[in-house]
Amino acid sequence: MSAPLEHLVPSRAAKKARFDSDSIYPILDEALFCTISYSIDNQPFSIPTSFVRYEDKIYIHGSVGSHFIRQIATGIPVCITVMLVDALVVAKSAFSHSVNYRSVVIFSKAEIIEDYEQKLASFEWLTNKVVPDSWEYLRPVKPNEVKKTTALAFKLDESSAKARTGMPNDEEEDLELPIWSGLIPLSNKRLSPISDSLSENISLPAHLQHL
Amino acid sequence: MSAPLEHLVPSRAAKKARFDSDSIYPILDEALFCTISYSIDNQPFSIPTSFVRYEDKIYIHGSVGSHFIRQIATGIPVCITVMLVDALVVAKSAFSHSVNYRSVVIFSKAEIIEDYEQKLASFEWLTNKVVPDSWEYLRPVKPNEVKKTTALAFKLDESSAKARTGMPNDEEEDLELPIWSGLIPLSNKRLSPISDSLSENISLPAHLQHL
Repeated sequence: MSAPLEHLVPSRAAKKARFDSDSIYPILDEALFCTISYSIDNQPFSIPTSFVRYEDKIYIHGSVGSHFIRQIATGIPVCITVMLVDALVVAKSAFSHSVNYRSVVIFSKAEIIEDYEQKLASFEWLTNKVVPDSWEYLRPVKPNEVKKTTALAFKLDESSAKARTGMPNDEEEDLELPIWSGLIPLSNKRLSPISDSLSENISLPAHLQHL
Repeated sequence: MSAPLEHLVPSRAAKKARFDSDSIYPILDEALFCTISYSIDNQPFSIPTSFVRYEDKIYIHGSVGSHFIRQIATGIPVCITVMLVDALVVAKSAFSHSVNYRSVVIFSKAEIIEDYEQKLASFEWLTNKVVPDSWEYLRPVKPNEVKKTTALAFKLDESSAKARTGMPNDEEEDLELPIWSGLIPLSNKRLSPISDSLSENISLPAHLQHL
């Protein structure tokens, strides 16, 4: 990532912010959803959506008729946030409670992907992120599906990652209190697939069998 | 919730939007985190943060020194989004893939909670949301901790909930394809607490024993 701009440097806990792709990409590659914010006449709007990173950009898709997609496709400034929560940090005082998280904030502007093959590739990347190795197994995408979908790319030049890890940081005078402190880890696991009625006699494909 | 404003009515899938507290409150009460967006000179900024609903408002807390808190405390318009993801919806075509989710969008403006007792109450609500029944067990909050923290409330008058449930909706002509379709449920579970080194000889309090 390039040099930090001023609005990328948080006023609090600035030491936690990282601007390198080794910090940023793994978070983007693990998280399935981001929240994209934009503003019209200083009224902010934000929408959660799925996304995929490929090389130095992230990609999102939406219906060509979507109001949200049409607004951000104009290239207005957006702020994209991603957060993974790893654990609740339970301290001896409420004031020292915290969260172990990994987050990314991206300031960017949409580029419309017009090229058919590149658009198709971006569908493949997203599909294989959501369900690894599934693209080749699915019914191939039809040209009219590509036409009905807008693909937008966002450069990651102005991005930063923040994370908290580890145990609670209680106040010095609280350390000896006989109050339990530690972590409550959160799992964000995929559970066993559930077939719909159309698939009861179809064997689960190999790429879903590990779940 | 009051009558929907125009920006609360999504252009797509408008049928899914709900404006009643029976739809909105359970999502706000289950989700631990929201993303708050605001805008300065049409540059959007957004930040994930924990929150709690109490009656017809949500509350967030932050350091009095936080740039983000000071910006939104001025009462500028904010957009707050909350999303819970229940399952990945795996269709026979990539185009029909979807997500089972429950989301809330809130348009609001911060009110600063100045009253000491009300501020303290909002800490209690949030603490007991993050770790149910824990407030009374913790070291009591000190007056200077209350002073160092800004508590902001947001009315929910302009809020809407959306959700998707159920199995994939494949295209009519795809229904007989021998391709597996169904759901991959996602669990967002709390795992067994992990003691820090200060708590190895402290028994786990009752409110954490079910984890």
